[in-house]
Amino acid sequence: MLTVNAYGATSATAPLVPLTIERRDVGPNDVLIAIRYAGICHSDIHTVRGEWGPIAYPQVVGHEIVGEVVEVGSDVTKHAVGDRVGVGCMVNSCGECDACLAGDEHMCAKGNTQTYASVDRDGTITQGGYSTHVVVDEDFVLKVPESIPYEQAAPLLCAGITTYSPLARWGAGPGKRVAVVGMGGLGHMAVKIAVAMGADVTVLSRTASKRDDALAFGATAHVATGEEGALESVRGSFDLIINTVSAKLDIDAYLATLRPFGTLVNVGAPPEALPVQVFSLIMGNKAFVGSNIGSIRETQEMLDFCAEHGIAPETELISADRINEAYERVLASDVRYRFVIDTATL
Amino acid sequence: MLTVNAYGATSATAPLVPLTIERRDVGPNDVLIAIRYAGICHSDIHTVRGEWGPIAYPQVVGHEIVGEVVEVGSDVTKHAVGDRVGVGCMVNSCGECDACLAGDEHMCAKGNTQTYASVDRDGTITQGGYSTHVVVDEDFVLKVPESIPYEQAAPLLCAGITTYSPLARWGAGPGKRVAVVGMGGLGHMAVKIAVAMGADVTVLSRTASKRDDALAFGATAHVATGEEGALESVRGSFDLIINTVSAKLDIDAYLATLRPFGTLVNVGAPPEALPVQVFSLIMGNKAFVGSNIGSIRETQEMLDFCAEHGIAPETELISADRINEAYERVLASDVRYRFVIDTATL
Repeated sequence: MLTVNAYGATSATAPLVPLTIERRDVGPNDVLIAIRYAGICHSDIHTVRGEWGPIAYPQVVGHEIVGEVVEVGSDVTKHAVGDRVGVGCMVNSCGECDACLAGDEHMCAKGNTQTYASVDRDGTITQGGYSTHVVVDEDFVLKVPESIPYEQAAPLLCAGITTYSPLARWGAGPGKRVAVVGMGGLGHMAVKIAVAMGADVTVLSRTASKRDDALAFGATAHVATGEEGALESVRGSFDLIINTVSAKLDIDAYLATLRPFGTLVNVGAPPEALPVQVFSLIMGNKAFVGSNIGSIRETQEMLDFCAEHGIAPETELISADRINEAYERVLASDVRYRFVIDTATL
Repeated sequence: MLTVNAYGATSATAPLVPLTIERRDVGPNDVLIAIRYAGICHSDIHTVRGEWGPIAYPQVVGHEIVGEVVEVGSDVTKHAVGDRVGVGCMVNSCGECDACLAGDEHMCAKGNTQTYASVDRDGTITQGGYSTHVVVDEDFVLKVPESIPYEQAAPLLCAGITTYSPLARWGAGPGKRVAVVGMGGLGHMAVKIAVAMGADVTVLSRTASKRDDALAFGATAHVATGEEGALESVRGSFDLIINTVSAKLDIDAYLATLRPFGTLVNVGAPPEALPVQVFSLIMGNKAFVGSNIGSIRETQEMLDFCAEHGIAPETELISADRINEAYERVLASDVRYRFVIDTATL
């Protein structure tokens, strides 16, 4: 067992504090990673505050992790000491179900092991990336290309794959018009990736405050949806919409902005059910779909794609003692576009 | 102008009665069809009773039409006198929009001209297939293969294409598990077509009354969804669901019966919005989609497919004086599985 420094919660309501956690011994298939940077995802906040269900405390969160391999198990073949690697939202899966056998670990029939607040194979509760080290099965460790700036790479492990996967599956590319709803941590990556795929990208966000950024990221248009008649102005326009907003949107109004055969993908889920007029789907053969991260294979593909196209998240590097402040700013949408913790400060 | 016998409505509330209607002169691109059989679709009833909005009377409905070409316009090249042909839900479109140019007339940006109760290019209201003759632009006339029994062919023009199109688009075929919700006019065709495509088919209907028919049509299983725990018994089972029921179903419960990456297609629309938990879509990367008939090209493909595989609707042939009775039986779900009018009795 390895005792390591971390930053975590001792209850649903108290601020996060410095603490120590135990990491398991490095098993034959494990990799020990010295974490260098960890991104702050909105999911971290929901989870650690118990908003997605009760959890055990103390709990360390963080599922956007990059660092260096410092030790490998006896049977490890995919990674070597000194490799620059990453870990995303999952650290294990059953390996035996149809989905796992097909390489879709994120769809594991038994439920994959999440990077934090999940029951690990040894019965302990997984602890996330706001810490100095983590031990992970080599099959769930990604290679982070050298050309991606180290300090910016972490958010790709969640925000990157969550947006890359539906863009790839639903055909973003040359000749396609893609809309991105909401330009936060996920949305800004959706814009950059869709642009790199060759699509014509429009950002739909409530106000015009991020218009300049949207255009700087390569979008050709920005629509402030809070303005009167905004959605009507783009009626029947898009082949694909990536909705990164977890608030309760008027789904029918967004479906109306799709072309025939278009697809609206939600990557965020509001807690309440959304009313959908089936007629909005039938007229135009449209699809309302969900998308949840991506497989390990697809995550590696995304990292390689970002390296090849020279794209990375916009980040604000912080020390660990600013995590609580960062949480408040995430909740206030006051971040452009992702906080990354420098774990040297833990 | 040609005055022809028909059977239609003079108001939203009165029974249908024999009447005569005018058909336009055969233009250069037109085909005059002597209608032999016309199917009765539930849509006919909704429309003629004004349930989908007010219409002008008298109105003749019917959009499942087969018959013989008896005259062709001077520029007609696709059809010849004596050909056995069909007409479905649309008889024209703008021909100039992106959708029309792509061969997706059913997605015409200006709205296609429906076979009945629609404003035709000459400003008149289109009149449907419960009549002895119809004049249609040759581009909207299908070839009905000789091997499809004449008396049974008509329902393919709506029930056939409405189910074939989503089965083809969403990948029904060998190794795929397809569920069909509701086994009426559309549902029984969905079963036959999906079986012919090589899929493993399960029928989900409220009671067990059609179980024997479902198995006879080639389904391997039938689930009576009105029974306790029925949907739970098929949780995570299907790659594709074709929902032919227009009533308000629990969409989340049906999404739960899909495998990861599965698709639920609605071909019928209840008037009220349906609540959908986005979480039901995100967990499993599932899709809730709509599908509306099919293009002319795809309709021809469907007719050829049915001929090749020797499949046709189950029909009950009636004389025109039984149309009102047939309507009552359609509303009571008392038909196996489609009424077809013998237009010789008009």
